[in-house]
Amino acid sequence: MYKARINVTLRQSILDPQGKAAHHALSQLGFDHVDEVRIGKHIELSIDAESEDSAAEVARQACEKLLANPVMEDYSVDIEPIEE
Amino acid sequence: MYKARINVTLRQSILDPQGKAAHHALSQLGFDHVDEVRIGKHIELSIDAESEDSAAEVARQACEKLLANPVMEDYSVDIEPIEE
Repeated sequence: MYKARINVTLRQSILDPQGKAAHHALSQLGFDHVDEVRIGKHIELSIDAESEDSAAEVARQACEKLLANPVMEDYSVDIEPIEE
Repeated sequence: MYKARINVTLRQSILDPQGKAAHHALSQLGFDHVDEVRIGKHIELSIDAESEDSAAEVARQACEKLLANPVMEDYSVDIEPIEE
């Protein structure tokens, strides 16, 4: 079993209203040194696969087909084994 | 300038309906080897700080005060310098 940790982030050129709202709220709370906030998704998949490579391939396919929007978002995949 | 990469995840004991829905959709698409899906937030902060330690402290404070719900969520903070 492998755990895939996936981060899906909006491309830099795409406006991020959720991040802007969080940035504004942080400013109100006195966080003056935070210059930018971007918010994306963190997804963890438990994958039953033979090898790290095949788990990574499943995770990438899942991103391409469902979890990320390839027009607006980028994703990164990080795989680690799970002790059973 | 530092970039803080924050992952906010629901605690394992908390039900994750968004993850369940994604798991169901992946099953429909033929991803039979994905056993569990958990969805959280990935947040990137650009922080103007003197040192890596003080940037990490700002990021942790932002999580405690706004970005994470300490009752239901855990968070991790990872800091790296940004080239200017």
